[in-house]
Amino acid sequence: MKILLAFASLAAATAAQAQEPRVPSGMQWLYGSGEGAATSIQAYHAFRDYVVAAARHRPRDSVVLADGATLAAPRFLPCGRRPLAVVLDADETVLQNLGYEYDDASHPGRPYDQERWNRWERTGANAVAPIPGAVTALRAIRRAGVTVIFNSNRLAAAAAENEAALNGAGLGPARHGSTLWLQGDAAPGSAKDPRRAAISARYCVIAMAGDQLGDFSDLFNARGLSVSDRRRAAATGPLAGLWGNGWFVLSNPVYGSGLRGTIDEVFPADRRWADPQQGNR
Amino acid sequence: MKILLAFASLAAATAAQAQEPRVPSGMQWLYGSGEGAATSIQAYHAFRDYVVAAARHRPRDSVVLADGATLAAPRFLPCGRRPLAVVLDADETVLQNLGYEYDDASHPGRPYDQERWNRWERTGANAVAPIPGAVTALRAIRRAGVTVIFNSNRLAAAAAENEAALNGAGLGPARHGSTLWLQGDAAPGSAKDPRRAAISARYCVIAMAGDQLGDFSDLFNARGLSVSDRRRAAATGPLAGLWGNGWFVLSNPVYGSGLRGTIDEVFPADRRWADPQQGNR
Repeated sequence: MKILLAFASLAAATAAQAQEPRVPSGMQWLYGSGEGAATSIQAYHAFRDYVVAAARHRPRDSVVLADGATLAAPRFLPCGRRPLAVVLDADETVLQNLGYEYDDASHPGRPYDQERWNRWERTGANAVAPIPGAVTALRAIRRAGVTVIFNSNRLAAAAAENEAALNGAGLGPARHGSTLWLQGDAAPGSAKDPRRAAISARYCVIAMAGDQLGDFSDLFNARGLSVSDRRRAAATGPLAGLWGNGWFVLSNPVYGSGLRGTIDEVFPADRRWADPQQGNR
Repeated sequence: MKILLAFASLAAATAAQAQEPRVPSGMQWLYGSGEGAATSIQAYHAFRDYVVAAARHRPRDSVVLADGATLAAPRFLPCGRRPLAVVLDADETVLQNLGYEYDDASHPGRPYDQERWNRWERTGANAVAPIPGAVTALRAIRRAGVTVIFNSNRLAAAAAENEAALNGAGLGPARHGSTLWLQGDAAPGSAKDPRRAAISARYCVIAMAGDQLGDFSDLFNARGLSVSDRRRAAATGPLAGLWGNGWFVLSNPVYGSGLRGTIDEVFPADRRWADPQQGNR
């Protein structure tokens, strides 16, 4: 299993030699590795196949949760005769924020700064790239007659620049107010349910994609939901069957609400091991 | 996008307060988050659906590369009339090594030690768990008449303990020499092509799953393959169409051959950004 770790050590040694900051593992995996690229290509193959098939048989229900739904007892909005759409997050779902993360990797230890991110939105449109697999999948989905809508927490105040980032990467058309919804639309704040509700008033949403559970329902961001309860709600509850069947997740180990938890929260108490030789080392 | 980072900072602060080592982000994501669990469930839904469908129409060709194939010009083994099988890696493909990674997270900065890993193989069988989604998918695949075979770089010398880890997690039957192939089988060393060839002499392999590109072909581990060439071979070459269509990748940002690369290797030169306000901070 672990033999290939030698490569990582070698890379770390090379970086140290050149006095260059070491790239965090999550970024190496997501932006640099064949494995990371394969993962998003696989997700977009599944997304495209699912959407093209669903467009043919016209599902009765949307994949957006209805008012009053809970994680334990989900209910979905009925579709009526509304036209079909898919809803995707932008950052690390369809867009790789390469320029921003390059700058971040170049300044290790620097805390997150919302103002820096806002400057990135305003000036970084040329330093992004599409997530591998996204462009061809979105093209096939539009060809099947399904509208592609982005629901992002980028700022409505930078709508033109955010349109430019998506359209420049070949992911568009993204047009604020119709196919692009941003923070500040429908309601203030980062909750995405109000925007999903507004989109659902006009469309039957047959699939969603995102790298954060909040891209599917704000219920996953409820205050007080423990790390293990949140994982359980996604993995073993009634919603687990949706992954790859209406809800499509993109891997993002670089940032976000999944990067939480102490040792006791991440590792179950009944699955622990101590090296029997540890005392000798 | 980034608002939820507040959670991560909060967790870091809590860990620091308790004098507990901070869990690396990759482990938080893979073992602790709903996003990580959703990703593997999605991959196993796709794997199961693909295999059950392929078992019905009996493909002419295997998904194992033939002798003489290259990444640029792949060719596949013909299936003949051999019975159908799938081949999966074990660690972080079907098995979560929770006990080992718990111990690792508890000792930050400690370098990798192959002997410690070997002790884990011999004594850790009770501290693993199945990857979310794997157990039900493998059950459906066996029900469709397809043999499930594991091809792992765990050691043949610890065959009984490695069988116990897989079988105890509900992933078996794993039997060394038939449904479990280990390092030392077929040829010495960690290359998996010799074992794939030996399995292919008896079976038509209709799908493979792994968290490392070497779980699909040793060609990805060729010496001298740069970080960007390796990503390109997986993402844009003739093999890119296989992800989710015969080759199934599980996300692993915790260890492995994808965790390589300096800033210049991970981030393309034409997608860089510098914060225009950086001088002020």
